[in-house]
Amino acid sequence: MARIVMKFGGTSVADLDRIRNVANRVKREVDAGNEVAVVVSAMSGTTNQLVKWCTELSPLHDAREYDVVVATGEQVTIGLLAIALQTIGVNARSWQGWQIAIRTDDAHGKARVEEIDGAALIERMQQGQVPVVAGFQGIGPDNRVTTLGRGGSDLSAVAIAAAVKADRCDIYTDVDGVYTTDPRIVPKARKLPAVAYEEMLELASVGAKVLQTRSVELAMKQRVRVQVLSSFEDKPGSMVVDEDEIVEQPLVTGVAYSRDEAKVTLRRVPDKPGIAAEVFVPLSAANVNVDMIVQNLGADGTTDMTFTVGKTDLPRAKEVLEKARAIIQYEAMITDPDVAKISIVGIGMRSHAGVAATMFKALSEKGINIQVISTSEIKTSVLVGLEYTELAVRALHTAYGLDAEG
Amino acid sequence: MARIVMKFGGTSVADLDRIRNVANRVKREVDAGNEVAVVVSAMSGTTNQLVKWCTELSPLHDAREYDVVVATGEQVTIGLLAIALQTIGVNARSWQGWQIAIRTDDAHGKARVEEIDGAALIERMQQGQVPVVAGFQGIGPDNRVTTLGRGGSDLSAVAIAAAVKADRCDIYTDVDGVYTTDPRIVPKARKLPAVAYEEMLELASVGAKVLQTRSVELAMKQRVRVQVLSSFEDKPGSMVVDEDEIVEQPLVTGVAYSRDEAKVTLRRVPDKPGIAAEVFVPLSAANVNVDMIVQNLGADGTTDMTFTVGKTDLPRAKEVLEKARAIIQYEAMITDPDVAKISIVGIGMRSHAGVAATMFKALSEKGINIQVISTSEIKTSVLVGLEYTELAVRALHTAYGLDAEG
Repeated sequence: MARIVMKFGGTSVADLDRIRNVANRVKREVDAGNEVAVVVSAMSGTTNQLVKWCTELSPLHDAREYDVVVATGEQVTIGLLAIALQTIGVNARSWQGWQIAIRTDDAHGKARVEEIDGAALIERMQQGQVPVVAGFQGIGPDNRVTTLGRGGSDLSAVAIAAAVKADRCDIYTDVDGVYTTDPRIVPKARKLPAVAYEEMLELASVGAKVLQTRSVELAMKQRVRVQVLSSFEDKPGSMVVDEDEIVEQPLVTGVAYSRDEAKVTLRRVPDKPGIAAEVFVPLSAANVNVDMIVQNLGADGTTDMTFTVGKTDLPRAKEVLEKARAIIQYEAMITDPDVAKISIVGIGMRSHAGVAATMFKALSEKGINIQVISTSEIKTSVLVGLEYTELAVRALHTAYGLDAEG
Repeated sequence: MARIVMKFGGTSVADLDRIRNVANRVKREVDAGNEVAVVVSAMSGTTNQLVKWCTELSPLHDAREYDVVVATGEQVTIGLLAIALQTIGVNARSWQGWQIAIRTDDAHGKARVEEIDGAALIERMQQGQVPVVAGFQGIGPDNRVTTLGRGGSDLSAVAIAAAVKADRCDIYTDVDGVYTTDPRIVPKARKLPAVAYEEMLELASVGAKVLQTRSVELAMKQRVRVQVLSSFEDKPGSMVVDEDEIVEQPLVTGVAYSRDEAKVTLRRVPDKPGIAAEVFVPLSAANVNVDMIVQNLGADGTTDMTFTVGKTDLPRAKEVLEKARAIIQYEAMITDPDVAKISIVGIGMRSHAGVAATMFKALSEKGINIQVISTSEIKTSVLVGLEYTELAVRALHTAYGLDAEG
């Protein structure tokens, strides 16, 4: 017997048959004696259509009205799922963001959840009713509908789970868990029974996008135990939990990769104090996110600066840096979009030195040149040529003993 | 300078181009110095799709969840229209039923408006903002979304007009006003510059369905001046107002017809007290509405009872009456679906006797047999053979001097 929040994404509620399927899954948890609340997204495709209408009317549409329009997608799903549940004998009632209420700030289109009153939901659950909650939406300080940004339904689910003090938040999705790496690249990738919040954050931010990053941050902050599992298969998924819950902690939990970055090198920049600010402040002002940074001091008082930016930001970055050339005084700018970032992630790295050495050795053995290295407490990333992506991921997966047996 | 509520139906907001067209119409009223609020329906087709989903999941779906689902149609339109208005420089803000709030009873799916707080809307209008209000929806006593039933957006518009003390409620539709009769039958039909509430009610209930009946009743009760006009053409429509406002009152304002009734005759019913109850109570219990009723007393202590029911209710009516045959003791039941009800309507009839005589004479001259007659204060209706519908309408339109000149 437990209190569970179940979250179903857009593909899981894409049509009436799938909504019926979701209703059956919910009924099973209810029949097992659990107290259940459900959070759902819009039927897949719906949100895109609504966004398209807003954008066609005006590319610079009012975010407040955009929120009014797109929030309808989830409203349709909660009503339909409540009907589907009632039809198979489950006591259910739909809840919109303003009814609960899910209070957010007024950053329309990407609002942050500030407070959720869980009292009404808890009361209903204790009475045996299943609250069916609209994901992705809340209510702002001026009583206007807000939305939480793309993938916001994961965030809603975690926030609701915290508000009702749920034992577990089950996120049903189209993958069946969190893997040691992308199974499309490494057939021997293993599903992780458990992964720590911090690891999940690093795995998400480097490309293994199973859960929306903000929802993992919130789960970590509120200590919500999250399970990622398949809405189409019937087997346990991966738990995302506090590291203390993970009994046998490997040094490296997973290998992630990202093909979304591009490399920028500024040659022979005068090595004077404040030069980094001259490079990175205008980039930041132009909304260009800079990720990995290395600086190689030359013998002649100049330095080569290399860093990565999002691939889609590259044209903007080049424009900004060309304009700033007179100030920065670099000799040449070289850009390369054909790079990949490969990362090993594991909270075990915190307490064990030398973990990265295995990485460098494994890549070297395959003849893969490392262009940039960056490290954090539980992650080491390297930048390599784009064509080496799969080779590098496979080599590291084997080197850290992550391959499945047999 | 006036305070106006403008209402646009589903066909007027069917796509983005039409929504832009509506925005331009609103802007024109704003530019003319008026204070404007807008009420809109769902984009045409949307509500049908949403209803279909609910029905497919369960024919006996919970009306509360049905309301959650179908209310989204109007929510999409208000957001999109607000964006369209802002895009052409009109200060606009969308309002859902619960935000205003439009308080209703809890009769989900066909709720009645109980109270509207107009204060917030009036304040915004006085500040030069255009409230864009979702028609068809409200909020019930338990803070759950309600809908007002089909055609409910007309009702919303009139109720909002009353709440904000509007000078006028303009209902934009796909006809350009209220006519003396159906122009498809009588090319010489004239658009009425003004029609009294009572007349509009009679015209609506006998088939000229320009405005939803409940919205006319509400307008009459709250003394809201309503204008019916075309959303596709640019000319004045018909005012629906208090009869005192109508300066030159003709005896007969219009000729209406309905092909939706069927005739039922019970032959040789024993003429005893309570016999009418024995016939009509079971019909009412089976939800069969009875309209015109006549009773002809025979010489032998029996009577022939003739009445009309909705054509779609005829099978049900027959079944009920066959079951009750032993109690009613009629000799035979004769039914005829091939009838039409033709009505002349005019508040002038109240003070002038003999108006109906012209009707009987005109029909007789065309050789049209009158099967049933019923009268009310401002209406006289006759039942004739279905094939005489057009002939009868044209004859009466001419006889009462309603034909347009030239």
